[in-house]
Amino acid sequence: MVPHLTTALSGPLLAIERQFLAELPAIEQWFRGGFSEHTPPFYASTDLRNAGFKLAPVDLNLFPGGFNNLSDDFLPLAVQATQVAIERVCPEAKRLLLIPENHTRNRYYLLNVARLQRILRLAGLEVRIGSLLPEITAPTALEAAEGEHVLVEPLVRRGNRLGLADFDPCAILLNNDLSAGVPPILRGLSEQNVIPPLVAGWHTRRKSHHAEIYARVATDFAEAIGLDPWYLVPAHRVVSGLDFQSKEGEDRLADTASELFAEIRAAYAARGIDQEPFLVVKADAGTYGMGVMTVKDPAELRELSRRQRNKMAKVKEGLEVHQVIVQEGVPTFERLGEAVCEPVVYMIDHYVVGGFYRMHTERGPDENLNAPGMHFEPLRFASSCSLPDSGLAPDAEPNRFYAYGVVARLGLLAAAIEIEELVTRFEEQGEAA
Amino acid sequence: MVPHLTTALSGPLLAIERQFLAELPAIEQWFRGGFSEHTPPFYASTDLRNAGFKLAPVDLNLFPGGFNNLSDDFLPLAVQATQVAIERVCPEAKRLLLIPENHTRNRYYLLNVARLQRILRLAGLEVRIGSLLPEITAPTALEAAEGEHVLVEPLVRRGNRLGLADFDPCAILLNNDLSAGVPPILRGLSEQNVIPPLVAGWHTRRKSHHAEIYARVATDFAEAIGLDPWYLVPAHRVVSGLDFQSKEGEDRLADTASELFAEIRAAYAARGIDQEPFLVVKADAGTYGMGVMTVKDPAELRELSRRQRNKMAKVKEGLEVHQVIVQEGVPTFERLGEAVCEPVVYMIDHYVVGGFYRMHTERGPDENLNAPGMHFEPLRFASSCSLPDSGLAPDAEPNRFYAYGVVARLGLLAAAIEIEELVTRFEEQGEAA
Repeated sequence: MVPHLTTALSGPLLAIERQFLAELPAIEQWFRGGFSEHTPPFYASTDLRNAGFKLAPVDLNLFPGGFNNLSDDFLPLAVQATQVAIERVCPEAKRLLLIPENHTRNRYYLLNVARLQRILRLAGLEVRIGSLLPEITAPTALEAAEGEHVLVEPLVRRGNRLGLADFDPCAILLNNDLSAGVPPILRGLSEQNVIPPLVAGWHTRRKSHHAEIYARVATDFAEAIGLDPWYLVPAHRVVSGLDFQSKEGEDRLADTASELFAEIRAAYAARGIDQEPFLVVKADAGTYGMGVMTVKDPAELRELSRRQRNKMAKVKEGLEVHQVIVQEGVPTFERLGEAVCEPVVYMIDHYVVGGFYRMHTERGPDENLNAPGMHFEPLRFASSCSLPDSGLAPDAEPNRFYAYGVVARLGLLAAAIEIEELVTRFEEQGEAA
Repeated sequence: MVPHLTTALSGPLLAIERQFLAELPAIEQWFRGGFSEHTPPFYASTDLRNAGFKLAPVDLNLFPGGFNNLSDDFLPLAVQATQVAIERVCPEAKRLLLIPENHTRNRYYLLNVARLQRILRLAGLEVRIGSLLPEITAPTALEAAEGEHVLVEPLVRRGNRLGLADFDPCAILLNNDLSAGVPPILRGLSEQNVIPPLVAGWHTRRKSHHAEIYARVATDFAEAIGLDPWYLVPAHRVVSGLDFQSKEGEDRLADTASELFAEIRAAYAARGIDQEPFLVVKADAGTYGMGVMTVKDPAELRELSRRQRNKMAKVKEGLEVHQVIVQEGVPTFERLGEAVCEPVVYMIDHYVVGGFYRMHTERGPDENLNAPGMHFEPLRFASSCSLPDSGLAPDAEPNRFYAYGVVARLGLLAAAIEIEELVTRFEEQGEAA
């Protein structure tokens, strides 16, 4: 069961996939070079959009949930990649403390935590789970989906070290995106390896920073393999000094949107793409799915309803939004039956270890498929992203999955550079707060 | 379909598997340390023997054939491990020359070459195949099994570089065990990475050298995880100065065998193992399956028939045998129906990427299952060696496979040290010839 591209505009995508197939050795060689210069994150996931005429990541998550949505068939791949990641980041590590999000009632998120724990154990670490929640005062077995349980324990800080009552870990792996900033208990852990570094949290990351680096990385890549970079890079702008409640900056936002619409229309015309462009406006410091709106006409931004203002004004943990990224929307033209499908690709170290489709029946191709309260059915990738076959059509399943893996890794390389830049910036400023 | 252990002696093996399961993090940590000190070979395969009361490798091949016998399900694992190996050995490599054995008519061997080429390509290398055979004077498509073809091309030497007429590779991967020594065309390739180093060929390797290092490595390992090393290490002796045709050294060989029989009987008695011991005598410089005999009584070695003398006197490429290794035989007690089964485990870099059982219906548990002219049916491992499950019985399939992977990697680590020692020795002596 693989979603079908429902667009007639498969010409350019076929061209992308054909070029990826033809240039496979050059592509892998290019990534080898990139990831030898820039240390890959320990793990990441990325949401892709496949428009037929454009294939691009729309988000890159450095604290991936959803490992429970990957096929068990690829578990050995995840274990092996984790061994590589451990050897790179903390070869001496024996004990690892995993710090999850505070979603103690989301049974699917907890299943993700259980899967992660299993992968890390099989890679050869003793793994226990510490909670940032003050109400976890004793070891607590939380109920995860599929009848599994996750044992969550209270964190114990001892000087410069963080652990559990009877557990002193060598390394700490965050599966918590730090949207609300770095809790004091995580600061100043100078003796332990914190993965990823604290600056990779959403309290410091900016979508626009990632988007700029991604544009640079994907453009370099496209030029290296002889492809029009436009096929891989969504255009974007940043607008700051906004206050959605007082309407401050609204005109600037609408003007920027007009500009971007004009740019996209020109690009569509130049490539014979008969589509109505749309934009996605996102809180620059927002986390996944919050503070996001789709815009089909710049005028919409001058006529925001109170509900829309409220939605855009604050993101997770109640943070106010003053800066947004306005991005070229990439419609998703993959369908399975009535459902709109969006591929999500998982990576450990610089290896693609699996993925799934988010399938949604009640949303359109230009809507955000990862919104709060959104219900999706995961459709596990049935084959790996590393077995393209030039004997098959460029759009055959293994070849499409390979293309997803390539674009996902471009996002990953951008994240590697982004983290480097954040680490440098915060080292100059003192510790990230 | 997994072979069953037909022995009642499963007590000790259960103990081995139980200990491996309990000590998983310590085991993986131990290997991380070992392979950070000693660079793993690019690839290897090892034949294991599972006696129920002992689990040990009986051979380690640094030029593995048989990649065609691995399940396609684990191909992504092999591709990913190959990417690690390339990054370690030749990160800059774009073009790789694969030099196979001269078995141009063995369609299964050629399918192995085709599989290897595919894995290397998917890992991101441009791969072509150069033949050492003088009769290959033009690119020749050889017929492999399963309807595949392998394009084999004549080697072209240019100064210090080896390649094809229109192909100048960065690295050369040998799938030829150099039994007859290093052909002149492979000597002095100072500008290219030759993998594995020439000294890893069977012209320089000695089984006894590997066995000594293996005994050391496996003993260290067993002590680290609290296991009796005897369960993993076959006893062995070396006898040199032999001439099978003139019967020179025959008495010394028989006396050594008597000694070893006494040692094994004592070890069996101490552990309550009710088995008749046997020995395997192998040409120390021999390659797989040649110059090998099974001995149940030292007297047999004083009464060799002419046929047996001829068999032992010469190995592959007609080399004379003057030194043998006498090894404790490890019976294989795995069966599927009537067939005797021997697991073969494949590794790339230090990762286990799959395996299969050699199944043979016409041989006994104490015979060599990899003899010339031997016919076996490969039975692909149905699951990976990296997913042990402590919720299952210690001898359940994923746990037995994990145990195989552990013992295989002990052999691999021994080979890593062996190659290091050979490289050092030959650097002291000048180039290996």
